[in-house]
Amino acid sequence: MNKTKEKVNAAIVVIGNEILSGRTQDVNVAAISKWLNELGVKLEEVRVIPDLENSIIKTVNEVRKKFKYIFTTGGIGPTHDDITSKSIAKAFNLSYGYHKKAYAILEKYYGKDKFNIGRKKMAMMPIKASLIINPSSGAPGFIVDNVYCLPGVPSILNSMLGGLNNKIKGGKKILNKTISAQTVESEIAKSLEKVQLKFKKVEIGSYPFFRLGKIGVSMVIRSIEKKKIDDCHKEIVIFLKRKKIKIIDNK
Amino acid sequence: MNKTKEKVNAAIVVIGNEILSGRTQDVNVAAISKWLNELGVKLEEVRVIPDLENSIIKTVNEVRKKFKYIFTTGGIGPTHDDITSKSIAKAFNLSYGYHKKAYAILEKYYGKDKFNIGRKKMAMMPIKASLIINPSSGAPGFIVDNVYCLPGVPSILNSMLGGLNNKIKGGKKILNKTISAQTVESEIAKSLEKVQLKFKKVEIGSYPFFRLGKIGVSMVIRSIEKKKIDDCHKEIVIFLKRKKIKIIDNK
Repeated sequence: MNKTKEKVNAAIVVIGNEILSGRTQDVNVAAISKWLNELGVKLEEVRVIPDLENSIIKTVNEVRKKFKYIFTTGGIGPTHDDITSKSIAKAFNLSYGYHKKAYAILEKYYGKDKFNIGRKKMAMMPIKASLIINPSSGAPGFIVDNVYCLPGVPSILNSMLGGLNNKIKGGKKILNKTISAQTVESEIAKSLEKVQLKFKKVEIGSYPFFRLGKIGVSMVIRSIEKKKIDDCHKEIVIFLKRKKIKIIDNK
Repeated sequence: MNKTKEKVNAAIVVIGNEILSGRTQDVNVAAISKWLNELGVKLEEVRVIPDLENSIIKTVNEVRKKFKYIFTTGGIGPTHDDITSKSIAKAFNLSYGYHKKAYAILEKYYGKDKFNIGRKKMAMMPIKASLIINPSSGAPGFIVDNVYCLPGVPSILNSMLGGLNNKIKGGKKILNKTISAQTVESEIAKSLEKVQLKFKKVEIGSYPFFRLGKIGVSMVIRSIEKKKIDDCHKEIVIFLKRKKIKIIDNK
C-alpha cells in the first residue's frame, strides 16, 4: 500500500459537465468536507472532470492511490450521460452488470410494474460492490475498495452520508476557531505571520470579507489539538488589542 | 508544444484551504466558466488544492501542459498563507521579486505613506510576468505563459475578468438550449439516449430537479452548431409530446 494512504485524508471527484459548464453551482464539496471534518478526515484535493469514460478511469485510478478515501459525485442516474458506474468497473477491471441486492432494492422501491429499463440501469454497477443505502430515493450508491460513489443531487447525497459514518475510520477531529476583526489583511499580515511561525503545526488562514457594509478579516485557526488553537488564538487577540483593532466575532 | 494545447480548452486551479475545509463555498468556478463559454473556451477540468507550495507547483506544471489556458484563483494577497505568486515563479523557474509596474500601481493606489510591508508583498511575483489589471482593489493579478493568476475574493475576481477578454483567443462559442419537462429521468432515458446516439457531436445532459414542489428534468443541449442544437431540440420535443409529458420551460 502506498505510504500516503496511511494519512487519514480524502479527495472528491466531481463528475459533471453541468458543473464545468457553469450551469450548476456545486454545493456537494462543502457538504462532504464538513461531514469529513466531523469524522476526522481531511479533504486534500478536489477534481471536477467531464462525463467522459477515459477521464473518469484515469482520474479515479490516479487519486485512489494517493488518498485514503475517494468520493465521487454524479453520474449514477438512469440516463445515457450517467456513466460513473460503468467507468468505475472499468477502472478496477471488475465485472459490470446487475447488482443483485441493488436490483432487489429498486424493484421493491418502484414496484414490479414501474421498474422500467431506465430504473433498472441504476442497479447496474460493479457486481461485487458494497452498497450505500439511499434513504430518500431508492437508488443506492456503491463502494469499491476505497472509492465511494455518490449521486450528484445534493438533497439525495446529503441523505446518504450519515449511513457511511461507521465505514469511515477517521483520525483525530480537526478543530477550528475563527476571529473576525475590523481591519484589512495588510495591517495584520506581519503580526499574523509571526504567530504562524511560532505555531508551525497549526494552520492559520486569513480571509478578507465585505459584509453588511463592513470590511474585515476572518482568521481561521485549525488543528487537531485544542490547546494549540487556544494558545494561538490568545496571541492573535493580543496583537489585535495592541493595534487597537476591533474584534467583531470570536467563535 | 503538446498537441492537446491546440484545443481551445481551459482548467482552473483553485488554491484554497478554505474551500477544502468547507468553510467557504466556491463560486469562482461557475463565474469563470460562464465567462469562458462566452469567449468560446471550454472548461475541461478543475482542481482544488491546498495552500502548499509543492501542491501548487506540481499541479500547475501538470495542467499547464494539458490545457490551453490555466486560471488559478486565490493566494495572491498580503498574508503568510498567500503563496501562489512565489509558487508560480518556482513552477516556471523564474525570478521572484518586486514587479516594477505592480509596485508602481500599488504605491499609487495606497499612497506612499500607507504602502506598508503587507501591501508591498502584493507587488512580489515573477518579475517578468504580465499584469492583470484590478479595477476594484488595486492589487493586480498576473500572467506567466498560459497561466493566469487571479485573486480568490469573488467580487474582485469578477471585476478583473473583462480586462482579459482581448488576451483569450477562443474558438467558436459554445451554444446551449434547455428544455425542462414535468417527468422523471427514468421515463425519458431510453428516448433521450436515442436522440444522443443520432446527434453524436451534440452534448445532451439530463438533470433532475425538485423545485417549487414540482419534480422535473432539465435536458441541456450544447454544441457550437446552432442548427444541430435546433434539430436535436425538435426531436426531444417530439418524444415528449408523444409521451404526453408537459414541457415546463423551453429556452
